Order: sequence, then C-alpha cells, then structure tokens
Amino acid sequence: MTATLHRISPAGREPSLEPILALVASDLNQVNAVILARMQSDIPLIPELAGHLIAGGGKRMRPMLTLACARLLDYPGTRHHKLAASVEFIHTATLLHDDVVDGSDLRRGKRTANLIWGNPASVLVGDFLFSRSFELMVEDGSLRVLKILSNASAVIAEGEVNQLTAQRQVETGEDRYLDIIGAKTAALFAAACRIAAVVAERPEAEELALDAYGRNLGIAFQLVDDAIDYSSDEETMGKDVGDDFRDGKVTLPVILAYARGDAEQKKFWRDAMHGHRITDADLAHANRLLVESGAIEDTLARARHYGQRAIDALGGFPASQAKAALTEAVEFAIARAY
Amino acid sequence: MTATLHRISPAGREPSLEPILALVASDLNQVNAVILARMQSDIPLIPELAGHLIAGGGKRMRPMLTLACARLLDYPGTRHHKLAASVEFIHTATLLHDDVVDGSDLRRGKRTANLIWGNPASVLVGDFLFSRSFELMVEDGSLRVLKILSNASAVIAEGEVNQLTAQRQVETGEDRYLDIIGAKTAALFAAACRIAAVVAERPEAEELALDAYGRNLGIAFQLVDDAIDYSSDEETMGKDVGDDFRDGKVTLPVILAYARGDAEQKKFWRDAMHGHRITDADLAHANRLLVESGAIEDTLARARHYGQRAIDALGGFPASQAKAALTEAVEFAIARAY
Repeated sequence: MTATLHRISPAGREPSLEPILALVASDLNQVNAVILARMQSDIPLIPELAGHLIAGGGKRMRPMLTLACARLLDYPGTRHHKLAASVEFIHTATLLHDDVVDGSDLRRGKRTANLIWGNPASVLVGDFLFSRSFELMVEDGSLRVLKILSNASAVIAEGEVNQLTAQRQVETGEDRYLDIIGAKTAALFAAACRIAAVVAERPEAEELALDAYGRNLGIAFQLVDDAIDYSSDEETMGKDVGDDFRDGKVTLPVILAYARGDAEQKKFWRDAMHGHRITDADLAHANRLLVESGAIEDTLARARHYGQRAIDALGGFPASQAKAALTEAVEFAIARAY
Repeated sequence: MTATLHRISPAGREPSLEPILALVASDLNQVNAVILARMQSDIPLIPELAGHLIAGGGKRMRPMLTLACARLLDYPGTRHHKLAASVEFIHTATLLHDDVVDGSDLRRGKRTANLIWGNPASVLVGDFLFSRSFELMVEDGSLRVLKILSNASAVIAEGEVNQLTAQRQVETGEDRYLDIIGAKTAALFAAACRIAAVVAERPEAEELALDAYGRNLGIAFQLVDDAIDYSSDEETMGKDVGDDFRDGKVTLPVILAYARGDAEQKKFWRDAMHGHRITDADLAHANRLLVESGAIEDTLARARHYGQRAIDALGGFPASQAKAALTEAVEFAIARAY
C-alpha cells in the first residue's frame, strides 16, 4: 500500500469491479452476443471447445476495458462491440495455446480444453478464433484498429516465445521479465484500451494515454497474478496454486528471491526451476523464502507502481463515472493480492 | 490421363514448374527478401525456427501463384510482393501447427521443427508468423485483401478441425473429404490467386476466375499428394511414405478402397485407421488393395477432373506466357503422380 494507491476506494469500501461492470453492462451483453454468434461454425467441435473456455467464467477484462474507455470518451456508436469481441477472441486463442504450451490442466477452476479434447484440437480451435478475430476487425473496416491489433498479436507471440526461452532460467533479469509480460500480457490490455480512442476518432494523445493506461494496468495485473500464484489457495485462483513453481516458470517473485538469496538458496531456486523440487514441502519452503526475502512484498510494490502509472495516465481526462470506474479497476487489480 | 489434360505438355516435354518459375523469378526474389526481413525478431528462436522451415526447400507454390496471376493480369506494381510473403507466412504457420497436430517428424526431407525445438515453440512461432502475415496485409492497406485472407485463414482452421474430427473414421464420405481439403488446402491456393486480381484492380469476374483456378488446382494438388503418400518412395516425397496410413489419416484413396471393399477388406481398413495395422507388411497390403480396387487410379482421375477445371477457369484470359505457365503448373501438379 502506498500513499497514492489506496486499498480502500474513495467510496469507503473494498475496491471492486462493480462500478466498471455497471458502467458497461448493456454494452457487454452486446459483446457477448457477438462472441456467441461468431464462435459458431459448421464444425461442431469448434463452438463446443471454444464455448467451454469463453462461457467458462472469464471476467471479460479486456472487452470491458474497450467498453469503459469508449464510455470515458462519450463514444455514442456501437462499432466497439465487434472490436471488443475481436479482442476477446485473440485473448481466448492465446489462452488455448498457452495451456497447450504449459501442459496446464486447470483454468478458471475448470479442466482445460487441452485436457478434455487434446492438444491438437486446442491448437486448431485457437487458430480458428484468431482468424475469426481478424474477420471481425476487417468487417469493422478500420485499418488503424487492424494495425494496432495485428501488431499486438505479433508482440504477444514474441513475448510467449521469449518466456519459453527464459523457462527455468532463474538468472532471468527483472528487465527481461518486464519485457516478457509487457508483451505477452500488457500489449493486449493496451490495444484493447487504445482502439476505443480510434473508433471514437479522438486525437492521438488520447490514444496514447489509453494505451499507457492499459499497458501499465496489464503489467500490474500480471505481477499480482505472479504473487498470487504463490500465496493464494486454489479456490481463489481458479487454477492450481504453485503451478508457476512446478512448471519452472520464472516470475518476478522468484527473480527477486533468487537475486537476494545466499548460495544455498540460489541452489534451491535453480533446482526448483529445473523441476527437482516439486513436493508440497518444497513449495512451502519456496513460499517461506519469498516472504522472508521480501520478494512477494516487493513484487506487489512493483505492481502498485505500475497501477499508479495507469491511474495517472488518465489524468488528462475530466472526472466522470467512467474515469472513476477505470481507476477503481486498477485498485481492484492490486487489491486481489490482499 | 484424359483427352484434355495431357501428361506431355504442348512443348513436347514432361510438364514442369520451369515456365512459372522463369516467369516470376525476379518477383520471387523480392518476395523472398520480404520473407527473410519480416521473419526477424529480437527473440532469436523465432527466426531460427521459422527459417528452418521457410528456408528449408519449400516450393513457394502459393506466393508463386500470386506472382504468376499478377503477370497474367499485366499488373505493373510491387504491392503483391508483400502480400505473397503474407500468404507464405500463413502457409508456414499452418505447417508448423499441422506438424504438432500430427506429431510428424519429417517434412520436406528434414526433421520437423516440433521434433527439434518441441511442440510449444512450434505453436508459438506459428502464432507469430500468422500475426506477422496480418501485419503485412495491414501495411498494404487493402481491406478487400484482408477480407479474402482472414476468411481463408478461418476456413483453413475449420478444415483442419474437420479433418481432426474425421480422423480414423474410415466411413468418412467422399463429399466430406472434399469439404475438408477444399478448406484446409484449396482455400489458400484460391486466395493466393484471387488477391492478384484485387491489387491489379480487375473486375470481380476475373477475381472469381482466379479464385476458381486456385481452388481447383489446390484440390487436385492435395489429391495427388494423397495418392503419392501411398505410392511414392521417401526420397521423392520428402516426408515419410505411408505417414497418412500410420497416422490413420483417412484420405480419398482409403475412402474409395473402403467403399469398394468386401467385409474382410473393410475390417482391414477399419483396423488400420485405428492404428492396429502399422507394419510394413500392412502398408504393402494396403497398397495392393488400393491398386486392385482402382482407388489410386480413381483418386488421380478425380485430381485430373479438378485440374481440368482449374485450366478451364483461365479460359476467359487471352493467351500469354503467364497463362501457359499457369496451365503447365496444373499439368505438373498432376504429373507428379506418374
């Protein structure tokens, strides 16, 4: 907690997604209708598999951001519904491929698609959703939006490959790690926000402000996720706790704990990230090291830093219900860790 | 061989790709330069893995078609270089994902990327190339081209899922099989040809003629591949002979042999497609059944039918070097089987 990013929102309650949800509720229904209509196919396995993930309790965080940013700009049209669906399709495609890459078996508290239908189906339905997302953008017809989202997609893939290359390498520096999550997570948050300014035909400065809001929120969001993976219980997370640990996924908590550790602790982390420390006792030991070294606390401090930057990026916009909701969404992203 | 599709080209020699290669040679150098430049990334694994496949002896069939069709239309510009590279990126992305889906270990006579770098890297680099292909299209800036290629991409993915669903099901009908290869193979051939008419700003009738040329050629091409998989040697194919058989991939030769077989033969095919007949003796037996039932011969007859339709789709274009080269490319696609 810092002086500027409060755990208790100005309304005197725990920060929540309620305000942003209320703000975009009717729009989000339209987006969900587009999503449902456009994930259909004559090949039954496609809507079946895609529906498992899309209908399966996702928070629609990214489409919600597009919609809320459009509200912030008083955009009166409906073009952003199709584009928000497009963003969610890109996100869903990357989740399907991520679960194949990581061999995950639990996502959002449910068995993963790759576990139920196999890796081949997950890869191919991901490809379908990705293609479909571009069809939606093309229907909208804005080359500027197409440029932003095709670039974001390439950057996401680069970030994923970068992370794969860094897998199990505990010496990964904090800067490289920030590059990775800036690409694999924050790029789509940034694009989701930015395209609202494009459809609302606002000056580039506002595009860039929303891009910065989304990007910083995305980084904060990912850092909090990384911290939660070590400190939460399975029920809260909706995925296996300690997954990152067992997968040898080098996240910021590990990077900090490794950098601060003595020789014995460094050896523990190296062994752990190479898959030689996978018992519950090992995970408990890891958690102790993370807490004692201040690695969890400082990962969250970094998250608050980016969260604050997200909030400040909105500084140029006049006060409004939308601005308050977007601000509280950042506070919520951080507060999940507490 | 039919009366209308000659094994010996009018020039009195075996049909070859030489005329089309000569026609587009200088353009193809430009396309290769774009491909090489745009598969680069700060993440070294991306150009390394992509280069393995892209530099690895592919025929550049699809970009060549874009270039040759542009010649047919006397298109004087250079926009199609970037778009032909985009088409090749889509193709490469689908190859990377196909090899993951099929668990293949040999492609174009080399070890597959998934065997060398693993499935995760192949999935993610495929995603990168796919995104990059859209970036290239967006740079070109034609919404019409974007529509054609994003639609083709979605159709390809649908075709791949359809094929996955039909895997090992020897009762798959010929119509469904034609749907599958029309989507997974022919859609990109069609799009590669069609976009030449878009950049050359020709009337829709010519767009559709080139689409039909590419689509029919694509089907012919795939059917010949299916036949060759049973009747060629490894050196000619550049992939494992009998791969389709051992993978339980139900292709037209099998569909025809099964439909024509007696009860005992039907049982053999069912067992084989379910992976219970995988020895060399089994493959030899399969080959005998395919030849004796006329399944190989008739698969090639179907291929000649589509090849002839491809050639006839060019009927509206005046005689030219490009038309002759495109015609001979079809004859070559068929002649590979003999």
